[in-house]
Amino acid sequence: MTQATDATKSASEPCLLTHDEGRVRVLTFNRPRALNAFNQELYLALAEALRSADADPQVRVIVLTGAGDAFTAGQDLTEMASMASATGVIGFEVLLDALEAVGKPILAAVNGLGLGLGLTILLHTDINLMADEAKLKCPFVTLGVVPEAGSSFLLPHVLGYQRTAELLFSARYMGAKEARETGLVLETLPRAQLLPRVLELATKIAQQPPAAVRETKRLMRHATRGEARAARAREAEEFKARMVSPEFQEAMRAFAEKRAPNFD
Amino acid sequence: MTQATDATKSASEPCLLTHDEGRVRVLTFNRPRALNAFNQELYLALAEALRSADADPQVRVIVLTGAGDAFTAGQDLTEMASMASATGVIGFEVLLDALEAVGKPILAAVNGLGLGLGLTILLHTDINLMADEAKLKCPFVTLGVVPEAGSSFLLPHVLGYQRTAELLFSARYMGAKEARETGLVLETLPRAQLLPRVLELATKIAQQPPAAVRETKRLMRHATRGEARAARAREAEEFKARMVSPEFQEAMRAFAEKRAPNFD
Amino acid sequence: MTQATDATKSASEPCLLTHDEGRVRVLTFNRPRALNAFNQELYLALAEALRSADADPQVRVIVLTGAGDAFTAGQDLTEMASMASATGVIGFEVLLDALEAVGKPILAAVNGLGLGLGLTILLHTDINLMADEAKLKCPFVTLGVVPEAGSSFLLPHVLGYQRTAELLFSARYMGAKEARETGLVLETLPRAQLLPRVLELATKIAQQPPAAVRETKRLMRHATRGEARAARAREAEEFKARMVSPEFQEAMRAFAEKRAPNFD
Repeated sequence: MTQATDATKSASEPCLLTHDEGRVRVLTFNRPRALNAFNQELYLALAEALRSADADPQVRVIVLTGAGDAFTAGQDLTEMASMASATGVIGFEVLLDALEAVGKPILAAVNGLGLGLGLTILLHTDINLMADEAKLKCPFVTLGVVPEAGSSFLLPHVLGYQRTAELLFSARYMGAKEARETGLVLETLPRAQLLPRVLELATKIAQQPPAAVRETKRLMRHATRGEARAARAREAEEFKARMVSPEFQEAMRAFAEKRAPNFD
Repeated sequence: MTQATDATKSASEPCLLTHDEGRVRVLTFNRPRALNAFNQELYLALAEALRSADADPQVRVIVLTGAGDAFTAGQDLTEMASMASATGVIGFEVLLDALEAVGKPILAAVNGLGLGLGLTILLHTDINLMADEAKLKCPFVTLGVVPEAGSSFLLPHVLGYQRTAELLFSARYMGAKEARETGLVLETLPRAQLLPRVLELATKIAQQPPAAVRETKRLMRHATRGEARAARAREAEEFKARMVSPEFQEAMRAFAEKRAPNFD
Repeated sequence: MTQATDATKSASEPCLLTHDEGRVRVLTFNRPRALNAFNQELYLALAEALRSADADPQVRVIVLTGAGDAFTAGQDLTEMASMASATGVIGFEVLLDALEAVGKPILAAVNGLGLGLGLTILLHTDINLMADEAKLKCPFVTLGVVPEAGSSFLLPHVLGYQRTAELLFSARYMGAKEARETGLVLETLPRAQLLPRVLELATKIAQQPPAAVRETKRLMRHATRGEARAARAREAEEFKARMVSPEFQEAMRAFAEKRAPNFD
């Protein structure tokens, strides 16, 4: 997939959909054939949409969700190999900076599969609800890499150290019930009821005095912001080292050859 | 209500009751007609009673509870508007400093309604038990203000970030069952059994070697003390700014006019 | 028990057993007649075995468990009194430094009773599973001393502040169900199934790319390492002071005289 192809595609079908329900801005990842995986285009589109929603006085709450059956498969693996040698703007980092800068509440409606950033983005949103049918996974070690998006600090903060260790080391799926019980999401419900319920909650929050809500979020985020940023910096440094490791190369070869990787 | 009136009232009926059960000092908020709301008098009386109990070698454990049906409605709103222009000693800050300085274990028996400080005081006590009939709420954003008492740091520390965000943004009530499941209180039981159970637990702790207990509390509190203090300072600064905001003024007008506030 | 006796005993029956299951190194505390209590010999043997396992390229995961009915009774009280006047190497500190330095995942199979370090060691392992029949207790205050092994910081981090306060102040037992519900262990199961399940999980982790797993653990531990170390230093300082306190002396006299201590 080249940038030219992306540009062509995005002209007819944007990779991010935007619409408002009253004072709630809904942003929908819209690459359903790629399970809404994040390519450079989607990273930058979402970052820009977040900045725009945060600046818009008509918008009080932001909702993130995915089109079709998936929430998001995370980093698009077809672009991942090229990240090792990437120069210039890294969409992933631009998106995380944008997420961190948003002052308004962000709710996530996890409608389906979440991989990698599909899970770790939930550490940067404020309230997450999840469809019973959805499942989440952090496949970092299986790819020979390490956690990202500050998750080496934020995920233990939410799930506890042990559960995080077990999930990251085994790279297994977590279902909706477990996500709720461990505190990764607040509520789980059938997919058909997910977005209506998220909008109901978002609308209720949108009725509160917006500056008080914004300052409350700022005060709450303050406590972990420094550590989350420091974790992101440590992760990014190690991530770069991992991308030239034999483990990562074997994982990418196995992905290309559609076989299980061999780490013996 | 003037200070003179308070002084008259407190002569006949003190705003704080004190009695000992063996080595356990029980302090009871006693303004039942005001749902035990904290006015300047009660802030200072409780602060002084905590210092006195901590210094008394006959006392090993402290219990906090409320008279009548409420635990405490928090800041007395009839005095809140005047806080914006207050000079001299702020009772609220005096109480928090006193709570933080107590070396002995403090148990809370949440017998009924807790609003604002009625919830956030539970972040400065060591063990909280709650009546099944009680409920708690942080109405900060609805008043156009922000969390206090270090709760922007301590509440996410206890409930997790997301649950705290949802509670603070929506300003809804939390019942006893949810308070237990989220870790805000350790046990819930019928109101008639609450104080006996709290005294049983307090008496058991009072049989332990007191210096070892005190040093254990000191070591446990050390880890969060600095961050809790820093959060309090950030909150206090923002609180002051919020009290001259249009949102706060609308909230106070609506309170005086007994109507719902309008933040559109 | 003298060092000479220990040396004789350890010649015939080592205090720590070591065997490998594939790429998993299993280390078994083996002083069953002393409920696997840690004496100086066992502290040093386990520290050395951890360093050796971490350096061995054939080993990818480490498992800790106890021989017989107990996990470990923690500090051997027959050696505790002499610690007050100890000079030279302190086995306890050597072990904690070694645990902290291990880069590979450590799983604990809590097969039975855990006292003191038998609980607090679980804050330095990565994934803990526990037999339904096992129970855990931190008897620190009852001995007139304070929490150790960084537990004044790490235990509230896992269980929450209140539950930790209640457990430490009351020095009561915690069963397997409560240990799981509070997050101290991830799974509980009948003792006969414990080690097979731990080995199954360890083997699964051992199939992942080892450098990615190691770096993931390093990143995850980074966030709490500094605070855990600082807590250990504060605890060690206070522990020394407590060991010359009247409370500690009464606790040791009561232990020697097989009577309940009196702290009135």
